[in-house]
Amino acid sequence: MKRQSIGVGLMGFGVVGGGVARVLIDKGPALSEEIGCPLILRKVKVLAPDLTKPQTQEMDSRLFTTDDNEFFTDPEIDIIVEAIGGESLALQYLERAISSGRHVVTSNKEVIAKHGAELIALALKHKVGLRYEGSVGGGIPLIAPFHDDLVANKINGIYAIINGTTNYILTRMAREGIDFSIALKRAQELGYAEANPENDIEGIDAVYKLAILASLAFHTEVRPEDIYREGISRLDTRDFHYARELGYAIKLLAIAKQSNNSIEVRVHPVFIPEDSLLAKVDDVYNAVLVEGDLVGKVLFFGEGAGSLPTTSAVIADIVSAAKDIILGAGSRAKWKLEPGKVIRPMSQIETRYYLRLNVTDCPGVLAQISKVFGDHLVSISSVIQKLTDSITQMAEIVIMTHPAKEAAMQQALEELAHLTVVKEINNFVRVEA
Amino acid sequence: MKRQSIGVGLMGFGVVGGGVARVLIDKGPALSEEIGCPLILRKVKVLAPDLTKPQTQEMDSRLFTTDDNEFFTDPEIDIIVEAIGGESLALQYLERAISSGRHVVTSNKEVIAKHGAELIALALKHKVGLRYEGSVGGGIPLIAPFHDDLVANKINGIYAIINGTTNYILTRMAREGIDFSIALKRAQELGYAEANPENDIEGIDAVYKLAILASLAFHTEVRPEDIYREGISRLDTRDFHYARELGYAIKLLAIAKQSNNSIEVRVHPVFIPEDSLLAKVDDVYNAVLVEGDLVGKVLFFGEGAGSLPTTSAVIADIVSAAKDIILGAGSRAKWKLEPGKVIRPMSQIETRYYLRLNVTDCPGVLAQISKVFGDHLVSISSVIQKLTDSITQMAEIVIMTHPAKEAAMQQALEELAHLTVVKEINNFVRVEA
Repeated sequence: MKRQSIGVGLMGFGVVGGGVARVLIDKGPALSEEIGCPLILRKVKVLAPDLTKPQTQEMDSRLFTTDDNEFFTDPEIDIIVEAIGGESLALQYLERAISSGRHVVTSNKEVIAKHGAELIALALKHKVGLRYEGSVGGGIPLIAPFHDDLVANKINGIYAIINGTTNYILTRMAREGIDFSIALKRAQELGYAEANPENDIEGIDAVYKLAILASLAFHTEVRPEDIYREGISRLDTRDFHYARELGYAIKLLAIAKQSNNSIEVRVHPVFIPEDSLLAKVDDVYNAVLVEGDLVGKVLFFGEGAGSLPTTSAVIADIVSAAKDIILGAGSRAKWKLEPGKVIRPMSQIETRYYLRLNVTDCPGVLAQISKVFGDHLVSISSVIQKLTDSITQMAEIVIMTHPAKEAAMQQALEELAHLTVVKEINNFVRVEA
Repeated sequence: MKRQSIGVGLMGFGVVGGGVARVLIDKGPALSEEIGCPLILRKVKVLAPDLTKPQTQEMDSRLFTTDDNEFFTDPEIDIIVEAIGGESLALQYLERAISSGRHVVTSNKEVIAKHGAELIALALKHKVGLRYEGSVGGGIPLIAPFHDDLVANKINGIYAIINGTTNYILTRMAREGIDFSIALKRAQELGYAEANPENDIEGIDAVYKLAILASLAFHTEVRPEDIYREGISRLDTRDFHYARELGYAIKLLAIAKQSNNSIEVRVHPVFIPEDSLLAKVDDVYNAVLVEGDLVGKVLFFGEGAGSLPTTSAVIADIVSAAKDIILGAGSRAKWKLEPGKVIRPMSQIETRYYLRLNVTDCPGVLAQISKVFGDHLVSISSVIQKLTDSITQMAEIVIMTHPAKEAAMQQALEELAHLTVVKEINNFVRVEA
């Protein structure tokens, strides 16, 4: 039976919802041609339509409803788009949408990261699709590549800049030598950071996205709480100074590695070589570097957030769902789960380290510090001793290590902190080659 | 009806075919699980099985056949992979494969660039899929993004490094200051360039790939002969020297732009700012930068060729075809064709130019040269005059222009060549911002 039309119901009318509605209307004819039958926005479900918003005024007011039952029982809605955001309310509505037998599209990273597996199981049960391309990296194709294009590969590693806010802040700190707090303030003024910036600057947003990518890539359920996390607020202008001197850039990286059945997942600031491609990803841009056994290194780059890029991904998901409806295809929702995968504890990871210390400037200091490292089998690759403060007789030392176990490094740090010659461990950043 | 298995028939057993066969066997169980039923390599059609090759010896000899009829009538083959290469024979076999009602996968850029539209029409007629992800950029997802992920976007521009051989040569010339011929020889020794390197160094390979990408992106048929083409052999070490001095890298770019219904498609060496991401794409790596109206800039990077990366793409296409067979989906083959698109002649494009001249070192030379440019409304942005050769009394001048029409620039060049003070126009390279 040839379908008369495909109807879309939209839940939420904020930054993403407004963009999706706009594009569905403006590009309706082209999208309908792509699909092979008319694609029509049928309803927009909101808590209360804000008639003062220009984007609301531009829409046909009859599209809006505040009535859940009216929305979920509308026989003309084939695809439901969740653009509510947040966790619990969005989750409830997603469950209701899937259970109502509609194909569902969302860009909600928090819900997918925390409840992806159960939602996908629900979608399979109801034989509908659950698509979430916009949940990671805005309009950059990322879910589809892991799902489809890289399907022949065993993924060995993911190295990702997936939070635009922190990347903007780090770019400003590196280029202008300004403090974290000033860079954050500028990001807030430009609308890149929220009034309460915790989710971004503490790496929580990046953790959600990495949980999704790692789950897909490694065929297991990686939950947000499995991921080691550090934010960027303790980075200092001096760290950027030394990084440049040593040939590195500082980025907040989301890292996932797999070897045998052991998985390593972490989000924290990292020194990366300044001539690497990821080091060139500046401002609010995102990039995801993937290493596969066949494909080698592939990198995906673009704007990781914002109304239009996210809308680009959501519309692609809608078109894909519409094509499946026309073909009569059932659910393609899937998180392939392979048994026996283990998350490696952070103490077991191995990496190189950058360390910045304030020490008393007297003979034998370096020997004492070196001994502590040696006792824990941490090998030093270089030391920079900087100008001494002649009044306090204090010196700043920067140490780079060879690869070492995190547990050993943490023990060494603890012992260092107890040396009387060490006044302060100013910072400590991991290094990726 | 649940299918018992999906059978694959492979035509050709060279670099790509051998890789595909190997992976189908080695990763068979995982791929079968992904699809939901066994995926089995049924037959490999070759002109004559070369039993001396290790990759042939590793295979079950019963898989090989030289008999076309046996291959095409095998009821257990559902998907046919063309890995023959070249144009006419591959085209014949592709037509036969499609007409036999099998889903078809190829990575043959030449055939798709030259005959894509007719093959897709044939696939539609026979209700089968024609997939060609491996034809551009090896394992980097590129066809799928244009087909699906970026479907909501109007594509305004494509800027691509899509030939690994030339990128390797240019990287060596830039880094080591060596001549083109020496860099080419090294590429040949490493197996990156063929004994007859014309297809790569003259930009023919890049033209095929751009024809495919531009056709998909702009919803029209861009044929190889529509694309303006220049190779890299006339680049000199001095050009790299000046490029660096001016803050540029030199890359062979495949460029496609669309404004209104006018399309600009060209492959030639380009000066690009050295701090741009594309300038960092070195050695045999490829990268494709896409500009869409919603998504903004997205970039795809990776190894653009080679057995395993291309195999990654071919296997992804096989898995996609297998899923469609199981779903009972018909053809998804499509080159959306919008009417009224026009290819802009090269004379009408507008860009900036780099120019290197040998001139007589005497007063008034620059005035004469400037006048020629001025007469053609080409505005000069900077001039570097380099050391004079005291014996010949010749000087080298480097000129960068503001944006100008190609036709005006060509006329200016012709007049310059007739000035008695101009001994030689050494080179002339376009500049992209």
